[in-house]
Amino acid sequence: MPTLPKLQDIIQASQRIKNYAHHTPILTSSWFNEQTGGEIYFKCENFQKVGAFKFRGACNAILRLSKDDGQKGIITHSSGNHAQAVALASKRCGYKATIVMPENAPTIKVNAVRDYGAEIVFCDPTIESREETAERIIRETGATFIHPYNHPDVIAGQGTCALELLSEIPDLELIIAPVGGGGLISGTAIAAKKIKPGIKVIAAEPELADDAWRSFHSGSIEPVLRTDTVADGLRTSLGTLTFEAIQKYVDDIVTVSDESIIRNMKHVWERLKIIIEPSCAVPVAAIMDQKINITGKKTGIILTGGNVDLDTLPWSIIDIERV
Amino acid sequence: MPTLPKLQDIIQASQRIKNYAHHTPILTSSWFNEQTGGEIYFKCENFQKVGAFKFRGACNAILRLSKDDGQKGIITHSSGNHAQAVALASKRCGYKATIVMPENAPTIKVNAVRDYGAEIVFCDPTIESREETAERIIRETGATFIHPYNHPDVIAGQGTCALELLSEIPDLELIIAPVGGGGLISGTAIAAKKIKPGIKVIAAEPELADDAWRSFHSGSIEPVLRTDTVADGLRTSLGTLTFEAIQKYVDDIVTVSDESIIRNMKHVWERLKIIIEPSCAVPVAAIMDQKINITGKKTGIILTGGNVDLDTLPWSIIDIERV
Repeated sequence: MPTLPKLQDIIQASQRIKNYAHHTPILTSSWFNEQTGGEIYFKCENFQKVGAFKFRGACNAILRLSKDDGQKGIITHSSGNHAQAVALASKRCGYKATIVMPENAPTIKVNAVRDYGAEIVFCDPTIESREETAERIIRETGATFIHPYNHPDVIAGQGTCALELLSEIPDLELIIAPVGGGGLISGTAIAAKKIKPGIKVIAAEPELADDAWRSFHSGSIEPVLRTDTVADGLRTSLGTLTFEAIQKYVDDIVTVSDESIIRNMKHVWERLKIIIEPSCAVPVAAIMDQKINITGKKTGIILTGGNVDLDTLPWSIIDIERV
Repeated sequence: MPTLPKLQDIIQASQRIKNYAHHTPILTSSWFNEQTGGEIYFKCENFQKVGAFKFRGACNAILRLSKDDGQKGIITHSSGNHAQAVALASKRCGYKATIVMPENAPTIKVNAVRDYGAEIVFCDPTIESREETAERIIRETGATFIHPYNHPDVIAGQGTCALELLSEIPDLELIIAPVGGGGLISGTAIAAKKIKPGIKVIAAEPELADDAWRSFHSGSIEPVLRTDTVADGLRTSLGTLTFEAIQKYVDDIVTVSDESIIRNMKHVWERLKIIIEPSCAVPVAAIMDQKINITGKKTGIILTGGNVDLDTLPWSIIDIERV
């Protein structure tokens, strides 16, 4: 049975990936500080390799493989940032990556993964077909499957982001990150609580995909019930490991509306002049809507990624003035 | 007669504004390096106060005023980034700013200036009305007029950006900046050539507003003939001081098409994950179109600003696939 990584695993992951991943910058904004009364430090994983924190976890997991295992190949199923992360990390290690994708995946995402040199195997757009296809390839090739979040090395890799944040801003009182499958919030919470037991770690989630909130309160893993939130990186349910980490180390989970996610995504573009994807705006929405009171608090927010189709921006689809 | 600032003036400007303006970050991009064969350092003035380099010049000019003069107020006419820069710099110094704007100025720009606490006086949308209105207020109040570019202290302030760039990347071989009225390229060229005489400084300009290119070749200031380039920060003609600086210190001027400006603005958004306005993309277009060959060269590019109306992006108006 895999177990949760310890702080030591996260520190080792940080050493392991440091020549592969970016040490991303931290930005501040007097406008957001004035609006919320807090002192906010935005950790910019949108500037990470492949444009998302996912590279940290995939890179750590792949670097931990033996050369023999690596040479049998790496496999995952995803059409999001994890697919690009596995593709690039495999390429950088000289291994072959196979990504299983539904045949209806957007061309823009297929091309992004192909550009990083991975082989794409299409399947029917069902979970069963995706898993069967991956299992068949693993049987045939001996490739190693890298789960997008329910994997100790992936969680340890994602935790390196909080490590950087706390090494630069050691007196943070609160860290907020979004929760989807839970890999990032798990790594963040383990790192933060082990370094600084008094710190608060809060997860933010879309109302339309509030499975982590429900799981946190019911005490068992609840499935995500719909997949239409604009925060497309957060449409997944928790795994056994990430649920355990959340139960042990996360102080609270709050939910925000899609309208607020879009409005605050636009605020970040306008005020910080950086491109973030909708999932990143979930913690920002949580502080702007006062779902989390950060008045007077040094607060770290992890901006998770910046992969957006610039031709279909959410505010040009939904009229946010009506919200 | 005002004269061009010297390197010493730029160094003093840098000291003067350092507690007011941001020391902006420098970003790199392996994708842009691969596309061009160069080694590019993007100086991110889109992260500057008010979202543009203009704050440096306005701040330096206003800080140089005597308290007596400052208390009579500051005035300029502009509906662009210079207006916001004068408004915020005046506010930070405790002075009153008056901004003369045409009555048809976009609401978004009027509100931005008003948010920084300046008084707005509307005029007819002609150059004559703009100048008459400003002169009347100066007569009535004794306010000091801050020209957007043809002003030694403004040029010195804009030069502080190249000073920062060269202090961080001292072995740059080439710096490229856009040219509109010429304040930025003048300050950049003076700073760069005085610090490092062997460095090249090249200005990039939209084909649709190629007055600086024509002036450079004819030897006298040529007017801008049309004002429809997408690079809305570069629709102005040179001034006497900025023309003199360009003649003395700038190695070349190249022009690029609006289609290329839009395409490369989008590339920067996608690859660097930062918001830049169309004017910033002019030097990027120049290297991507090989109007300037940067193969093997350490090249600094000044990204001038990030103030964009996110509801009307240029690629959603022009179909760039056809280009």
